Amino acid sequence: MDKLEIKKIILEMGSQARAAAHALTILSADKKNAILRAMATSLREQEVGILEANAKDIAAGEANDLTAAMLDRLRLDHDRIEAIATGIEEVAALADPVGEVLSDWVRPNDIHFEQVRVPIGVIGIIYESRPNVTSDAAVLCLKSGNATILRGGSEAIHSNKAIALALQSGGEKAGLPANAIQLIPFTDRESVSVMASMDQWLDVIIPRGGKGLIETVVSLARMPVIKHYDGICHTYIDKDADMEMAVAIADDAKTHKPGVCNALETLLVHRDIVADFLPKIADVYQSKGVEMRGDATVLELLGDRASAASDEDWDTEYLDLIIAIKVVDSMDEAVKHINTHSSRHSDCIVTSNQSCAQLFMTQVDSACVFHNVSTRFSDGGEFGFGAEIGISTDKLHARGPMALRELTSYQYRVRGDGQIRATHATT
Amino acid sequence: MDKLEIKKIILEMGSQARAAAHALTILSADKKNAILRAMATSLREQEVGILEANAKDIAAGEANDLTAAMLDRLRLDHDRIEAIATGIEEVAALADPVGEVLSDWVRPNDIHFEQVRVPIGVIGIIYESRPNVTSDAAVLCLKSGNATILRGGSEAIHSNKAIALALQSGGEKAGLPANAIQLIPFTDRESVSVMASMDQWLDVIIPRGGKGLIETVVSLARMPVIKHYDGICHTYIDKDADMEMAVAIADDAKTHKPGVCNALETLLVHRDIVADFLPKIADVYQSKGVEMRGDATVLELLGDRASAASDEDWDTEYLDLIIAIKVVDSMDEAVKHINTHSSRHSDCIVTSNQSCAQLFMTQVDSACVFHNVSTRFSDGGEFGFGAEIGISTDKLHARGPMALRELTSYQYRVRGDGQIRATHATT
Repeated sequence: MDKLEIKKIILEMGSQARAAAHALTILSADKKNAILRAMATSLREQEVGILEANAKDIAAGEANDLTAAMLDRLRLDHDRIEAIATGIEEVAALADPVGEVLSDWVRPNDIHFEQVRVPIGVIGIIYESRPNVTSDAAVLCLKSGNATILRGGSEAIHSNKAIALALQSGGEKAGLPANAIQLIPFTDRESVSVMASMDQWLDVIIPRGGKGLIETVVSLARMPVIKHYDGICHTYIDKDADMEMAVAIADDAKTHKPGVCNALETLLVHRDIVADFLPKIADVYQSKGVEMRGDATVLELLGDRASAASDEDWDTEYLDLIIAIKVVDSMDEAVKHINTHSSRHSDCIVTSNQSCAQLFMTQVDSACVFHNVSTRFSDGGEFGFGAEIGISTDKLHARGPMALRELTSYQYRVRGDGQIRATHATT
Repeated sequence: MDKLEIKKIILEMGSQARAAAHALTILSADKKNAILRAMATSLREQEVGILEANAKDIAAGEANDLTAAMLDRLRLDHDRIEAIATGIEEVAALADPVGEVLSDWVRPNDIHFEQVRVPIGVIGIIYESRPNVTSDAAVLCLKSGNATILRGGSEAIHSNKAIALALQSGGEKAGLPANAIQLIPFTDRESVSVMASMDQWLDVIIPRGGKGLIETVVSLARMPVIKHYDGICHTYIDKDADMEMAVAIADDAKTHKPGVCNALETLLVHRDIVADFLPKIADVYQSKGVEMRGDATVLELLGDRASAASDEDWDTEYLDLIIAIKVVDSMDEAVKHINTHSSRHSDCIVTSNQSCAQLFMTQVDSACVFHNVSTRFSDGGEFGFGAEIGISTDKLHARGPMALRELTSYQYRVRGDGQIRATHATT
């Protein structure tokens, strides 16, 4: 398709999404929940068609030599479709964030102010291979009153279309406004540029995928982007740490699920306890096949059980059974290392010294700071948020685990009985 | 100066600002307030030098044929410097937003969660001619715990340097961290591009100035931009409006201060009451020299007192004694017009019908919606926020009047006693 044609189609989708967003603002919570449940039902009913579409993507993926891991991410089956449908029903059961009064007050001139939570409007989601994102993202956005424009990856295009169609057809029977959920039906790269340019229609873009995708969106986007670059997470074992707890947390954070963003990548150890602590954790790591890369002190203590860390190691998200280990002389040095090398996602201190922990938490410039808890708890579900659309490493609007509230904005509603500035000013 | 040199200097300022931001996180409210008061004192003490610098800018402005209005915006005198210093003391007297616990909860596994208000980090301010912005912006950012990099307009460069120096020297005596307030000491256009590119150092850019400046920043910036495009504000006179109140509000909103962003630009009138209302407001407008541009019905009723509005009028921010007037058949039509043409800043309904007002406020997609109150109250001071850094027409992070709270982010602080995900997961 040529660029002008792509642009025309996507701009038209944008305009339609805005109209849908306006229609969504007056839907009640009950209505939205009924729509969501109808979408789940429709998804189950259209399982055969969705699996047929998915088979096409799998066949194309095999022809294109996708890795086994990529094919697994792409693959749908009965259980996975059931999991997507159940996920929709779980979102329907969550409280509606829209309409919550965040604050209200009355000024001396008797003007009443209310700050009310409202939908953002139109949300663009640009994602890669997993077809379940089509449903997960659209559903969270809908629950929070937003229209969505989805742009999935080419590997999953048939699956995405089938899922979107099931959501739309099921939802519309229950009163989903037309065009509230739209999937761009092609995957030309130009579609990302057009989305990034149309700030009159898209209020925010959320890219979900690898660094290359996010980088492209950030460099092109005229509207806000809420992103999650990476998770270079640290755990600092203070001199006043409980040894047993320190070993358990350093173990869990690294080995419980090494391929995720809240997994530990760099372990910082206070010099005063390193001789005691390091052999203990090294035994655990070695038994679990964790490769250790350390500074001079670590090499001295561990000998050939560890290799030398390079400068690059301090800035690497391994997402694997590899860990960088550094010895520090003070908590200040740990904080400085973290504020220089962390991706501002999740960092932890293990210590029994409360004032030291408080100072660490105040100074570490990350979305989530943990005291005596594994960074693996940096997760919307574990926070109790119900469902998460991602974890933001940005500092504006949404930081850390992002759930329904983070998909809303607010509006000031101001009520009076004829006050005019000329005679009722308070300033 | 060549581009590479500019880039090197500004990147270095960015790195220094990040270090300053980290130092600012542990300053107490009392300490910040003492620094602010010292800055006010220093500004007063350095009045002679500041006025000398300002005289250079004025002379250059005259040589460059700046308009009288532009020269007035640029000009400083004793009273204006005193006003800036008093403004700093007023900010010192405001409550400190940093450290506020926004929410806290405990999960079933006894992990304690706290969402705490923290500074954003480093804020870039790009502004045009008014030298007082140098102080106003830096001071609000400092109060909220942020480091700033200021880039003012070329017309005010000498004044800006003198003000920044006074703030820095006064503040540092009282404990202001080095580089917490930095002014780019030149005004090459390249400096805007470099700022917009350095998302490793700047957490947000706030452009303050004309549409051209904002457009440039939006198209270049890799980090979030909080902007205020324009204020195309509407007032809708419903069929159930109190006539006297409607005239007073339409008058105030248009004529009280027509050159500001919360002034009325388009008046929408319900057809059922237009024959009654229009002649009344037209008399007021005519007596105050307001030019009226209307649709066919307006022309029919007002004859040659009004001229015909073109399509462009519905999208124009006049900032002047001109008003566009349109007759609508229903509140729905008014809402639709507003959601199509408003800049999402501030819009108003005048009606005695409460449910109609509620529906209007829910459906109008603007930062501030007013019921029976002049849009001129769309102002941080009138909201009771104390001091405002701008009015955001964006929907993410900050919407509407932006004050200290809007210059903060949040951080999750999570405390436990050794919980690990392998054995303490709740999901």
